[in-house]
Amino acid sequence: MLSTMQDVPLLISRILTHGSTIHGTSQVTTWTGEAEPHRRSFAEVGARAAQLAHALREDLGVVGDERVATLMWNNAEHVEAYFAIPSMGAILHTLNLRLPAEQLAWIVNHAADRVVIANGSLLPLLAPLLPHLKTVKHVVVSGPGDRSALASASVQVHEYEELIAGKPTTYDWPELDERQAASMCYTSGTTGDPKGVVYSHRSVYLHSMQVNMAQSMGLTDQDTSLIVVPQFHVNAWGLPHATFMTGINMLMPDRFLQPAPLAEMIEGERPTHAAAVPTIWQGLLAELTAKPRDVSTLGQVTIGGSACPPSLMQAFDKLGMRVCHAWGMTETSPLGTIARPPAHAVGTEEEFAYRLTQGRFPTSVEARLTGPGGERIPWDGESAGELEVRGPWIAGAYYNGPDSEPLCPADKFSEDGWLKTGDVGTISPDGFLTLTDRAKDVIKSGGEWISSVELENALMSHPDVAEAAVVAVPDDKWGERPLATVVLKEGATADFETLRAFLADEGKIAKWQLPERWTVIPAVPKTSVGKFDKKVLRRQYAEGNLDITQL
Amino acid sequence: MLSTMQDVPLLISRILTHGSTIHGTSQVTTWTGEAEPHRRSFAEVGARAAQLAHALREDLGVVGDERVATLMWNNAEHVEAYFAIPSMGAILHTLNLRLPAEQLAWIVNHAADRVVIANGSLLPLLAPLLPHLKTVKHVVVSGPGDRSALASASVQVHEYEELIAGKPTTYDWPELDERQAASMCYTSGTTGDPKGVVYSHRSVYLHSMQVNMAQSMGLTDQDTSLIVVPQFHVNAWGLPHATFMTGINMLMPDRFLQPAPLAEMIEGERPTHAAAVPTIWQGLLAELTAKPRDVSTLGQVTIGGSACPPSLMQAFDKLGMRVCHAWGMTETSPLGTIARPPAHAVGTEEEFAYRLTQGRFPTSVEARLTGPGGERIPWDGESAGELEVRGPWIAGAYYNGPDSEPLCPADKFSEDGWLKTGDVGTISPDGFLTLTDRAKDVIKSGGEWISSVELENALMSHPDVAEAAVVAVPDDKWGERPLATVVLKEGATADFETLRAFLADEGKIAKWQLPERWTVIPAVPKTSVGKFDKKVLRRQYAEGNLDITQL
Repeated sequence: MLSTMQDVPLLISRILTHGSTIHGTSQVTTWTGEAEPHRRSFAEVGARAAQLAHALREDLGVVGDERVATLMWNNAEHVEAYFAIPSMGAILHTLNLRLPAEQLAWIVNHAADRVVIANGSLLPLLAPLLPHLKTVKHVVVSGPGDRSALASASVQVHEYEELIAGKPTTYDWPELDERQAASMCYTSGTTGDPKGVVYSHRSVYLHSMQVNMAQSMGLTDQDTSLIVVPQFHVNAWGLPHATFMTGINMLMPDRFLQPAPLAEMIEGERPTHAAAVPTIWQGLLAELTAKPRDVSTLGQVTIGGSACPPSLMQAFDKLGMRVCHAWGMTETSPLGTIARPPAHAVGTEEEFAYRLTQGRFPTSVEARLTGPGGERIPWDGESAGELEVRGPWIAGAYYNGPDSEPLCPADKFSEDGWLKTGDVGTISPDGFLTLTDRAKDVIKSGGEWISSVELENALMSHPDVAEAAVVAVPDDKWGERPLATVVLKEGATADFETLRAFLADEGKIAKWQLPERWTVIPAVPKTSVGKFDKKVLRRQYAEGNLDITQL
Repeated sequence: MLSTMQDVPLLISRILTHGSTIHGTSQVTTWTGEAEPHRRSFAEVGARAAQLAHALREDLGVVGDERVATLMWNNAEHVEAYFAIPSMGAILHTLNLRLPAEQLAWIVNHAADRVVIANGSLLPLLAPLLPHLKTVKHVVVSGPGDRSALASASVQVHEYEELIAGKPTTYDWPELDERQAASMCYTSGTTGDPKGVVYSHRSVYLHSMQVNMAQSMGLTDQDTSLIVVPQFHVNAWGLPHATFMTGINMLMPDRFLQPAPLAEMIEGERPTHAAAVPTIWQGLLAELTAKPRDVSTLGQVTIGGSACPPSLMQAFDKLGMRVCHAWGMTETSPLGTIARPPAHAVGTEEEFAYRLTQGRFPTSVEARLTGPGGERIPWDGESAGELEVRGPWIAGAYYNGPDSEPLCPADKFSEDGWLKTGDVGTISPDGFLTLTDRAKDVIKSGGEWISSVELENALMSHPDVAEAAVVAVPDDKWGERPLATVVLKEGATADFETLRAFLADEGKIAKWQLPERWTVIPAVPKTSVGKFDKKVLRRQYAEGNLDITQL
C-alpha cells in the first residue's frame, strides 16, 4: 500500500531557495586580506546563483548534465557555484588545487569538464594545464589576480562579474530526479588513477540534514561557522549546504589559510564554530601561544581528515575551544562518525577517552567490521576488522566515464554493495569507532591481524627511538610477519633485543605479535603530504636493500 | 547522469536497529502511578519489538501490508508497536481514544484493521465497539485493567506479554520501498467522514531527522523528553521515532495526564524537554502555582495543536521553562513550522513577538499563501491568504480504501498537488507564519478577506464583552459580510453603537471591515473539544432564529 504523502524530490535547489529567502539576511563573509572582509547576504548569493545559472546556460551553452569545474578557494563565489550548477541540472566538479598538475589534467579530462570557474589567484596553476585539457571550452575568472597568464589561451575567457551582470536574479530551477548526479570529487589514492565519487541531490540533502542534527554539528542561525576545510575537499564536509538549510553564517578564509590571518578572522569576526584538519589547528595553536587573541566565541571545533593528537585536543580545551572529532572520507560525503560522548560519560573521566575515538555512526550510516578471512567481527571494543559502511550518502561505485558502467573494484566494495573503507579498527558495543590502522598496512599473520600503528606507537614511546615504521613482509609459516624499521636518536644505545623486550614489557604488545625482523634506517620515507610511505619500505625489503637482523 | 551513491531506502527498521544498538542504554520510562515508574532500555524495546513482529506474523497471521491498530496510551509497549508493525511491512494504525465510539468503529472498518493492540485500561471503551468491527480478528491486551469486558467477545483475545514471550529477539526486517505505507492516522473534521492520512517510511524518516535538527527541537542523548502529546495524535509529533534516532530518553505518562502526576513526573524524573497542547500546560501551571515543585530541569517546552496564549508563555518563562511554539496538523506529519526567533531578534524586544508567531518553515516545507481569488499573496507580514504547503512529509491525498484511488478533494488539495491547510494567515519576509483564522471562518467581502478571529479578539477586549463570535453571512452587494454575535457580561451597559465605535477606535479595525449586523446571544455554541462552533451560528442566522440589529 502506498502512502498518501506528496512525492517531493530532495533537491539542492530547494536548499538554495530556502536559504536565500527564509534565511536571506544570513551572511557569507569572505576574508580579503584587507581591513574589511567582503560580506554578502544569502539573499544576494541566491540572486547571483540564479544569474550564474543563466550565464552558464545562455552564454556558455551548458546543457543537460554537463560538468562545470571549480578551481577556487572558499569564498562567496564558490558558494554561488555550489548552488547554481547542480540546481540547474549540471554537475559541479570541484578541483583539488593541491594535486600535481598531471593528476589535475587527468581528472578534468576524465570528467569531461566543459567549463572551469577559477579564482584569479590560481591562474598560475591553471594556465599551464590548459593545453592538456581536451574538453574545456570556457574559463571564467573570479576575484583578484593577474589575468595575463591566460592571454594566449585557446579557450574562451570570461570575467565572472561581467558574465553574470544584468542576468535575471531568479531562475526556474528544474524539478530533477533526486538520484541525479549533483557534484563530483576525485579521490587521489596512493596507487592507480584517481577515482571519481559522484554525489546525488538526495545524498547531499540527507547529509546536510544530518550535519544540522543536534547530535552532529548541531548549528543554527545563531552561529557563524569558520569553514577552513576546503570546498574542493569533500564538499567542505557538507557545510555550505548545511548552512543554507538553517541560516548558519559562513566565514570563508579564501586563500588566507596561514595561522596569523586565521587568528585575526576568529578575533575579528567571532565565529562560534570552525572546521579543519589537524595540521591547520596545530599551526593556529602555535600562533595563539606566540600572540594571544580573543578567541572566546569559538566554542566548537570540528576536526577530521586525520586523528587529532590528544595533546592538541587538551590544548584547545584550555583555550575554551571544544574539539569534536569526526571521521569520514570522500566516499562518505564525508560524515561517517562524530565523537559526542554518550550521556553517561559526560562529566566523568571516561569522557576524554570517548572524545579521542572517531565517534559514533548516525542512523543513516550502517557499519560492520570484517576480519582477514571475511568473517564478521563483533562490536566488543577490542576485536579489530576492516570497517565497511552502507548508507544513502555512501558511495557504492566510482565514476567511469559517461558511456561506461560504474567501477566497483573488489578491494573497495563488498559483493553486497557496502563500501570497504580500507580503515581497520574496533567498534565498542555502544557504537564508537576507534581506527587503528589502514587495511593495507595491517600485518596478516596466521589468520590474525597485527596493527602496524600499535607497534609503531609502542616503539616510538622508547626514549632511544626517533621514528619507527612497521610493515608486513612475506613469511613462509605465517603468511606475513611484521618488520620493524627503526630510526634511532643521536647517541642512542638501545639494541634490538632491548627494544623487543621493551615492547613485551607489561604486556604492551602480545608475544605473538612481536617482530622477529629488525633494521635501522636513517629516516622513514614520507609521502608528499608527510605520511609514512610504507610501500617504499616494502619494496626496499623485497629488493634486499635493507640490512635485516633476525631475533 | 546517475550518482555513484548507494541506493539505501529510508526505513523505520533502520531507526529501530540504530536506536536499540548504538543507543541501547537510553530508556523509555513509563509512569505507573506507583512509587517506582517502569523502566525499559532501548535495547530491550528493540528486542521486544522483534518478538512482537514474530508474534504478529507467526501467531496472528499478519502478512503484507495489513493494518494493526493500537488503542493505547503513551508507554513502552506502544513504542514497541510503533517500530515492530511498520518495520515488518505492516501498517500501524493509531486510534484516537477521544473520538466518539461511532467514529472509532467507522475508522477501524475503513482501514480494515485486522488486529487491535489495546491497553487494559481502555477495554471499557473497546469492548462495546467490537460487535461493530467487521475486520478485526484479534485483540491483544497490554498492561493493567479488568479483562472481563472481553469475556464474551467473538474475536481472539491475547495477552501481550504471553504472546511475545519466548519469541526470537531479532527479526530479519525486510528491505521495503521507502515510499511504502508505514502508519496511518485519521483526522476528525467537523464535517464529513474522518479522512485517513497514510505516512510512508520515507516521510517518517525525513520528519524525524528534521525534529532532531538543532533549529527544530534539537535534542540529543543528553536529553529526556516528556512526551505528553499522545502517540495516537499525529505520531506524538514524531518524537518516538526521533528519540530512537539520537538516543533521547523518553518519559511516558501512560494514562496519568492530570496536572498533579505530570508535576510529579517532572520533579522526579527531571526531563529536559516536554511536548503537549496548551490545555495540558494551563492545568500544569495552575498545579505548580498551587503547589510548587522543582521543575528546573525542564528548559524547553514545545507547544502545538493550538496557539499558546501570551500570558501562558510568560508564566512558563518565569518558571525557567522556555516555550517554543510549533504549528502542524495530521496532514503535515506534523512539523510545519517552529518558532525559533532569528539571530537578530534574540535578546531584543522583538524576540517575544517572534515567539508568538507559529514559526518558520524548515527547508523541506515549501509554503505559499493564496487569496480569495486564487491569487498569490506576498510574504509581507500583512497580507493574509490561505496557507498551502508542499513537501516530502506533507499529505497529497487521503486514503480511500485498498481498491480505490486516493481521495483528493478540491477544498483540501490544489490542482498542482499542494495541501490547502484551511488556515489563513500572513508570512513575514523572513518566513515567519502568523495564523489569523480558519479559511472556513474568514469573511469573503468584495474580493477581500476579513478575519473573524481579529474581530472577535478586538470585541473581547472590551470590558463589557464576555465572549464574541463573528461569522460570515450572505450579502447581496459584497458576497459576504461579518455578523457579530456578542455575549455580554452581567450588568453590562454597552450597546452595539458603542462596540462598533470601540472597534473603529484608533484604527483597531479598518472601517470597511466593521460589522453592520449585530446580535446578543446567551453563550457561544461550542464543539466537543471546546472550540467555537460557528456552523451552529450560521445555521441559526440562516433559519432566522437570531434577532439581528442592522447598524
